[in-house]
Amino acid sequence: MKIPIFTISRQFGSGGRTVGKRLAERLAIPCYDQELIEKIMEESGFTREFVERSGEQMRYSSWIVGALSDRDINGHSIQDDLWSAQFSVITQLAQQGPCVIVGRCGDYILREREDCLRIFIHADMAHRIQRIVQQYGQRQDAPEKRLRDKDQRREAYYQFYTGQRWGEVKNYHLTLDSGKLGIDRCVQVILSALG
Amino acid sequence: MKIPIFTISRQFGSGGRTVGKRLAERLAIPCYDQELIEKIMEESGFTREFVERSGEQMRYSSWIVGALSDRDINGHSIQDDLWSAQFSVITQLAQQGPCVIVGRCGDYILREREDCLRIFIHADMAHRIQRIVQQYGQRQDAPEKRLRDKDQRREAYYQFYTGQRWGEVKNYHLTLDSGKLGIDRCVQVILSALG
Repeated sequence: MKIPIFTISRQFGSGGRTVGKRLAERLAIPCYDQELIEKIMEESGFTREFVERSGEQMRYSSWIVGALSDRDINGHSIQDDLWSAQFSVITQLAQQGPCVIVGRCGDYILREREDCLRIFIHADMAHRIQRIVQQYGQRQDAPEKRLRDKDQRREAYYQFYTGQRWGEVKNYHLTLDSGKLGIDRCVQVILSALG
Repeated sequence: MKIPIFTISRQFGSGGRTVGKRLAERLAIPCYDQELIEKIMEESGFTREFVERSGEQMRYSSWIVGALSDRDINGHSIQDDLWSAQFSVITQLAQQGPCVIVGRCGDYILREREDCLRIFIHADMAHRIQRIVQQYGQRQDAPEKRLRDKDQRREAYYQFYTGQRWGEVKNYHLTLDSGKLGIDRCVQVILSALG
């Protein structure tokens, strides 16, 4: 298999973003994550603050209320504009050649592309708690609550815009338990899928 | 990772059994599939015909009706005896050392073992249809109907005895799309997970 476009979906705290970055380094291809957010902003004219609030940083309850209620007379919301911009940016990035796209429903957006390898990274609660405390330190909320909140938000966002269940095995060519395998072994396994 | 016990769960027609056999050959360890059925029979005293009818060969509708209705005054069914025998055989096989166990809820039965690598093999409908027609030829039922019937039965059986959803990503260390990757690439990817 020649180097494909990789989409990496991941549970919060599973190290999926790190897997994506290391994979991209090994293959000398770009990895789009925060960079992607900036590109979305540039293209759509949204402020950085808004993009961040509508995406990763927002609580599930606030996001779902916003997505369902902040709609104009035509049933259109600012989240829908953000989704359209994201859809367009990811489609364009994929046209530029092999790359790694972390999160942001990349798997769904690029589902029709034959040269796309769709990956999902997950881990059990104990491994994810250990990882987020190491990476982000202690916060006011208990780590388990932070993980559940993030997962719920990602799941709701994904289902709302794709009509599919997040983390469903049939939507991925490869899913990996980073708690069992470790981050570097995950990278190695993905590379071995290329032949 | 030293050679673990592999459990391979698989959608019908995904080639998961072949992946298991080739993996076992590469590592020179045993692969239990039909052999496992024979061992279950030996241990439990069931006839071969009954084991086959209660397992793979049975239609979903017949299986679920049997599992729910063929119960004695204590709510106990002959399927429960088969499950207990299967549980005991798989546990004992795993105690003998590294091996590949295909199907039969091996992932659930061995879930507490640290030295177990749980794998799920799946593929899209088009690849699975092509494979079962190649392997088993044309039958009276359309291939898509045969696939759906088998999947439904495996799903119901798994859920009935494990209380878990079949094919759920969190229950596997590795899931692979054999339609995308091909059988030999799946074997290679699994081997790469060992380091």
